[in-house]
Amino acid sequence: MPKLNENYRKLKDSYLFAEIAHRTAAYMEKHSDQSLIRLGIGDVTRPLCHCAVQALHEGADEMGRAETFKGYGPEQGYEETRRAIADYYKKNGVELNLADIFISDGAKSDTGNITELFGKGNVILIPDPVYPVYVDSNIMCGNEVTYISGNAENDFLPLPNENQHADIIYICSPNNPTGACYNREQLKIWVDYARRHEAVILFDAAYEAFISDPSLPRSIYEIEGAKQCAIEFCSLSKTAGFTGTRCGYTIVPEELVFPDSTGEEMSLNAMWNRRQSTKYNGTSYIVQKAAAAVFSEEGQKECEENLSYYKKNAKVIADTLRDLHIPFYGGIHSPYIWFECPRGMDSWECFDYLLQEIQVVGTPGAGFGENGRNYFRLTSFGTYEKTVEAMNRFRSLFA
Amino acid sequence: MPKLNENYRKLKDSYLFAEIAHRTAAYMEKHSDQSLIRLGIGDVTRPLCHCAVQALHEGADEMGRAETFKGYGPEQGYEETRRAIADYYKKNGVELNLADIFISDGAKSDTGNITELFGKGNVILIPDPVYPVYVDSNIMCGNEVTYISGNAENDFLPLPNENQHADIIYICSPNNPTGACYNREQLKIWVDYARRHEAVILFDAAYEAFISDPSLPRSIYEIEGAKQCAIEFCSLSKTAGFTGTRCGYTIVPEELVFPDSTGEEMSLNAMWNRRQSTKYNGTSYIVQKAAAAVFSEEGQKECEENLSYYKKNAKVIADTLRDLHIPFYGGIHSPYIWFECPRGMDSWECFDYLLQEIQVVGTPGAGFGENGRNYFRLTSFGTYEKTVEAMNRFRSLFA
Repeated sequence: MPKLNENYRKLKDSYLFAEIAHRTAAYMEKHSDQSLIRLGIGDVTRPLCHCAVQALHEGADEMGRAETFKGYGPEQGYEETRRAIADYYKKNGVELNLADIFISDGAKSDTGNITELFGKGNVILIPDPVYPVYVDSNIMCGNEVTYISGNAENDFLPLPNENQHADIIYICSPNNPTGACYNREQLKIWVDYARRHEAVILFDAAYEAFISDPSLPRSIYEIEGAKQCAIEFCSLSKTAGFTGTRCGYTIVPEELVFPDSTGEEMSLNAMWNRRQSTKYNGTSYIVQKAAAAVFSEEGQKECEENLSYYKKNAKVIADTLRDLHIPFYGGIHSPYIWFECPRGMDSWECFDYLLQEIQVVGTPGAGFGENGRNYFRLTSFGTYEKTVEAMNRFRSLFA
Repeated sequence: MPKLNENYRKLKDSYLFAEIAHRTAAYMEKHSDQSLIRLGIGDVTRPLCHCAVQALHEGADEMGRAETFKGYGPEQGYEETRRAIADYYKKNGVELNLADIFISDGAKSDTGNITELFGKGNVILIPDPVYPVYVDSNIMCGNEVTYISGNAENDFLPLPNENQHADIIYICSPNNPTGACYNREQLKIWVDYARRHEAVILFDAAYEAFISDPSLPRSIYEIEGAKQCAIEFCSLSKTAGFTGTRCGYTIVPEELVFPDSTGEEMSLNAMWNRRQSTKYNGTSYIVQKAAAAVFSEEGQKECEENLSYYKKNAKVIADTLRDLHIPFYGGIHSPYIWFECPRGMDSWECFDYLLQEIQVVGTPGAGFGENGRNYFRLTSFGTYEKTVEAMNRFRSLFA
């Protein structure tokens, strides 16, 4: 009889979105005349840019002709796509070797699978509130997690405690769910801490394209010393609307080496390369072709238009909350707005209140961790018209 | 300092294809006038069928319009694609629930990731010779592997030894690399053994589409009792030439439950669902749309044409080896032909001999395990003309 991985028993049911759907459906059944506005959605809504669509068509045609047909590609990704990504980093002053870059089907796969490179007994720091994949993927392999508290006192941008040792540190900036974004000095504190503690930082940069202030780091490698201590995950999901098309990339610098228990050096780049070569067969050729097109000059211009649309929505929400004196985070360099539940409500009370009073659906902060219990997440992925209407309703409710 | 997964140290370098490339290049450098024929290739060469290409185009157009744009899809796959697969199974007399079917980016990912569902201390049976992913993915998580010997005595179709207990059993039929295919009676012996030992069978059916004899099982679920003991992996890679497009599927029946250490039941279906929901974000929408098209009547007809092309090549190779009295396996229900190295050569000697004497490149059996050391793999994925020419050269060399 197979012994099963009983760590799965320790996972909490991920009932957050199911519960939201349930409560919303129950309300609407009784009030079918009401017009609901969904600002809970964590998914993009704007179509793929023209460049990417054209590349998909070209790729499809290539696949249909024997002379241009593509079979198995390199597990690490096609050189053209990796080069496009290296050039993209260069614009932010970061030089990468192509061998540092691994194309994948998305950041979720890579942030989940990365645990495979590590052994047992590590001190793993994960912020609370947080994107649930970091915690769940560690629970699945039996790891203990130490939480670092993101809260109003630290503007949801926790910094390291020198007296607390860590081996592995998860950071997401701009953050999901809080929208908070580390500046250069803060990120340098983390890199310096990691270097002193010989820790590795797993840096999730999935929302970097929302950063509009050039003084804020879009990659952790903008910080000196980061190549010796950090892996960076990124994706075209939010950058270019690839949530349904699926393409991400992970940077594992060749400089990232640690001694094993016998003192011999092991390279995380070589390990990840082996992991991907053994358990992954590369990202769909046509998708990689579309990804390369996204990073062209024309593609970047088109993506910027979509991002501007979402940023305009975020501004509408942020301006409204500011006018209403509701404390909030994010909304500038992020599609997420994280506000303090007004009138002493907890996050599920706030959910019910917004649903019943103004028919606006968002995401209770409790779904992202203990520290989210009095916070609420709205996103800027709706239409402009509905976002404006939702905020008008906020104004009449909280004025 | 992070403790690393030192199991990676136990992996053998996968130097097989690199060594083949190296020896071939070295020979060709000195003999650039010679015409080389590659029959080592494990990748398809025929273009995607028209139906699939058309679906890719339609998918690309949908992605480019706001009204039809698709963001995150279900992690388990779109219902349309799962239903197409369920209908495909129905043709072989297998009834599946949609909840049993998980769409992925390929069988390599799933056969690699499946180890995550199991605990430590299992007795894991893996055939030798074998597709290297089964072994490597187990070494990576620190598991010990017990080999079952495929050899000439059992026609490379090993059967269980009642006195040997197993918890997890890997079976690949039609087999890579040997091309051998279990018949119904043989597969029933495995299923019955697994039921008696309460073991789970991980059945790799990636080459099922090459089976032309309707009396041979294309799915392990054609065997009674298999839903209580088997997970099946399959893919469109060889079925429909998706090696570069990337789509596979894994069947984890809801009937597949085992008690945990406290005696409480755990469902492998629920565990795989949780694994995929946590660490995977679904297969690209456009690729899934193309996959669904492959299973349409028209798509199946077109795929059959490509398969016939490869099967015709396989027959050319098989007929030649038979005429030359070289013992071989496969070549009928498989794109692979596995022959005994003639003249007492081992597989690398045979490689050099074929390269130097007749400029035909194949794959030394030693690359697939100890039992392959005197065998050699050819594939039917070349062009018809080159396959015929290669076999003419075989005839003059071995006559």
